Amino acid sequence: MTDFAATKAMFHLPDGVIYLDGNSLGPLPKAAVARMGKTMQDEWGEMLITGWNRAGWMEQPTRVGDRIARLIGAEAGHVVMGDTLSIKVYQALAAALEMRPDRRVILSDSGNFPTDLYMAEGLIGSLGRQHQLITPAPEDVAAHINEDVAVLMLTEVDYRTGRKHDMQALTKQAHAAGALVIWDLAHSAGALPVDLSGVGADFAVGCTYKYLNGGPGAPAFIYVAPRHAKQVRPALSGWLGHSAPFAFDLNYTAGAGIERMRVGTPPVLQLAALEAALDVWDMADMSDVRRASIALCDRFIAGVEAACPALTLASPRDGKDRGSQVSFRFEHGYPAMQALIARGVIGDFRAPDIMRFGFTPLYIDAADVDAAVAVIADVMQGDLWDRDEYRQRGRVT
Amino acid sequence: MTDFAATKAMFHLPDGVIYLDGNSLGPLPKAAVARMGKTMQDEWGEMLITGWNRAGWMEQPTRVGDRIARLIGAEAGHVVMGDTLSIKVYQALAAALEMRPDRRVILSDSGNFPTDLYMAEGLIGSLGRQHQLITPAPEDVAAHINEDVAVLMLTEVDYRTGRKHDMQALTKQAHAAGALVIWDLAHSAGALPVDLSGVGADFAVGCTYKYLNGGPGAPAFIYVAPRHAKQVRPALSGWLGHSAPFAFDLNYTAGAGIERMRVGTPPVLQLAALEAALDVWDMADMSDVRRASIALCDRFIAGVEAACPALTLASPRDGKDRGSQVSFRFEHGYPAMQALIARGVIGDFRAPDIMRFGFTPLYIDAADVDAAVAVIADVMQGDLWDRDEYRQRGRVT
Repeated sequence: MTDFAATKAMFHLPDGVIYLDGNSLGPLPKAAVARMGKTMQDEWGEMLITGWNRAGWMEQPTRVGDRIARLIGAEAGHVVMGDTLSIKVYQALAAALEMRPDRRVILSDSGNFPTDLYMAEGLIGSLGRQHQLITPAPEDVAAHINEDVAVLMLTEVDYRTGRKHDMQALTKQAHAAGALVIWDLAHSAGALPVDLSGVGADFAVGCTYKYLNGGPGAPAFIYVAPRHAKQVRPALSGWLGHSAPFAFDLNYTAGAGIERMRVGTPPVLQLAALEAALDVWDMADMSDVRRASIALCDRFIAGVEAACPALTLASPRDGKDRGSQVSFRFEHGYPAMQALIARGVIGDFRAPDIMRFGFTPLYIDAADVDAAVAVIADVMQGDLWDRDEYRQRGRVT
Repeated sequence: MTDFAATKAMFHLPDGVIYLDGNSLGPLPKAAVARMGKTMQDEWGEMLITGWNRAGWMEQPTRVGDRIARLIGAEAGHVVMGDTLSIKVYQALAAALEMRPDRRVILSDSGNFPTDLYMAEGLIGSLGRQHQLITPAPEDVAAHINEDVAVLMLTEVDYRTGRKHDMQALTKQAHAAGALVIWDLAHSAGALPVDLSGVGADFAVGCTYKYLNGGPGAPAFIYVAPRHAKQVRPALSGWLGHSAPFAFDLNYTAGAGIERMRVGTPPVLQLAALEAALDVWDMADMSDVRRASIALCDRFIAGVEAACPALTLASPRDGKDRGSQVSFRFEHGYPAMQALIARGVIGDFRAPDIMRFGFTPLYIDAADVDAAVAVIADVMQGDLWDRDEYRQRGRVT
C-alpha cells in the first residue's frame, strides 16, 4: 500500500492553503530545489559544455521518457520528452495523417483542450486545407467513427468536466474502421492507470506539469507505438532527431525509433526539476492512487452537494467515469472561485461556468477535503463571492 | 566603456579552466542560481497556479523578448521567447513560404547549421514536396538570389568557420528580387551588433544558451518584422498564440502581433535563468563587446599561428568578416581537442576537422587568451594529443 502521508511530506504546501489545482500545476516537490541547485552549480557551472556527456544531458529526454513510460503503460524506449504538448500534438497528428493518405477526417470532440484543436487547424492549413476537423460532443464520438476517419484524436479526460473516455473501446472501434488513434494524456498521466500498450494506442502525448508535478513549463512527452516507430516521417525534423546529430550532415536521416521525435536542444533545467518530481512515483502505486483519488472526489461531491445547493455537479457521478477532478457549474463561478482562492482554497475556473477542483492523494487527504468543503459552504452560504473585489476578470484563475 | 572585469566577476568560471566554448553553451551567471531558487520557492512553491498572474509568468515570453530585442536591433514588442531554435525556424519558414505562394525555392547555404536545413526538409515534406532547398557554398549565395527564390534563410555567422555574411547587402539583394529573408542569429545575438530593423529583415530566430548565457536548453526567440506581424498565419497555432487563450474557443484566432508566434506553455524555469543572465547586458555595450572580441580573436590567431604550424586558420583573418569565434583545421582535430580539454582549455570539435574556439570579452580576457595559446602550443609541440585516451570518439566534444 502506498504511504500517502509519506508522499505528502515530499511536497512543499504553503501554510493556509488547500491546493486543489494540481490538475493545472502540481506543487513543488521539495527535492526539486536541491536537484536544480545541483544541476545548475555542479553540472552547468562546473562541467560547462561537457555536461552534455558527463552529466547525461543528451540522454535525459529518453531517460526521463522511460520513467514516464512506466506510468502510462508504454513500452520502454518508446517515450521521449521535449517541447510542449502543443508541439507534440502536431508531431503525432502530422505523422498519423501521412499514414492514412487517402482519408481526410480528423475526429476529435468539443471537450478536447483547445490547443489540440488549434494545432490540428494549423496543420490542416499547411497541408493545403484538404482535411476536415470534426468535433462532436464527447458522448457522440463513437457514432462518428467511420472509414473516412484518418485519425481519432482525443484527450482521455475532459479538462472541463473530468469526463473520461473509454480508451480501450474507442481505440478498438477506430482501428476496426482503419483509423489511427492519438491519446492526449494531459489529465491522465499521474492521475490514473493508463495502459497504452494494452489498448494498442498508436500515439500518445501529454504534459508533465499537472499530475506529474514537473513545474511551470515542464516539457511534454510523446509515445509512438513500437509498430510505427521506425516508419513515421517526422514533420518537425530537428537535428536531435537525426540518426547522427553530430555528423552534421546536410541532409536529414531520421533516428532509429522514438529518437526521431526529438527536435531541438532539450530543456535541461526543466528536465532536472521533472526528474526530481518523478522520484515521488517510486513510492506510489498507480492503482492505490486511483482508488484513493476516487474516494477523495466522492467525499468532496457528497460534502459540496449537501452544503451548496446552488452548485450543480458537472462531472460524472460514478468515479470510474471520471478523471481525478470534480467540476461544478455555477453561474457566478468566476467570482466564487476568486473568493475561494482568497480564503486559501485554490481551484480554478473554466469558461463559461465551471468551478474545477483537482484531487490527488499524493498530497491531498480526507481532512483537506473536509476543510475545503467547509470553506466552500461558508463562501456560498454567506454570498461572500458576491463582492466587487472578486468580480474583476483576470487572464488566469 | 564596458567594465569587462566587472562582467567577468558575474560568472562562475571553474578553477583551472579557460572556457572557449561559450559559443556553444555560455557559463553560469552567478545571479542565475539565486534567481532560480526564488522562482522555485517563492513563486512555484508559494504562489502555485497563481504564479501565472502574480509572478508574471504569462507575460515572461514577451517581457524577455523585449530585452533580447534591444540586443539585436529589433523593435520593442516584436520578439517573443519559446520552444527551441528548430521550432522557431519552422515557424518563420512556414509563414514566409505562405507569403510567397508562387515561388518554390528556399535558398540557404552549406554552412548553415544543419537543423535549419532539416526543419526546411521536414516542412517541404508536409507541403507536398513542391519546394526546393538549395544550399550553395556561403560565398556563392548572392549569385543564387533570383526571382525563383521565395525565402533566403541564412545563419549570419557560420557555426564552423565563423565566417560572417553581409546581412545588410544580402537582405537588400533578396528584397530586390522579391524574396523574403530569415536570419538565424544563433552565433550573433550577444556576440556582435545586429540591426534587424535597420537591415529590414523579415524574420529572425536565435537561441539564448550561447552568447546570451541562458543555460542548457534555454528557450529560443523569434522576430517578425512589424510590417508582417499582423499578417502571418501561424503554422504552429498553439493556444498561447490565440487572441484570447482563456476563452477556450474551439476555433483558433491568431493573437494581435508577435503573440501569435507563441505556441504552448512557456518554460518558466528556463526563462528565469535566462532573465538573470540578461542582467549582465545591462552593464555591457555591444560595440565595446565587438571591439574587444575582435582584439581577443586577433591575439589568439597570432599566438596560435606563431606556435602551431600544423593548425590552419579556417576563419576569416579580418575581424570584420568573422563572428566571435576562431576555428582552425587540423586533421587530428578530435583527439587534439580532447587533449586540450583534459588540460583545461575547453573548445569544441566540429566534423570533419574543425577545432573551434569562442571568445567573449564578458568573461574572457587577454591573459586567458595567452594562457590558452600556451597550452595549445604545448599540446601540439609535444604531440600530446596523439594518445589513445584522446582518440575515442564521443557524441559531443
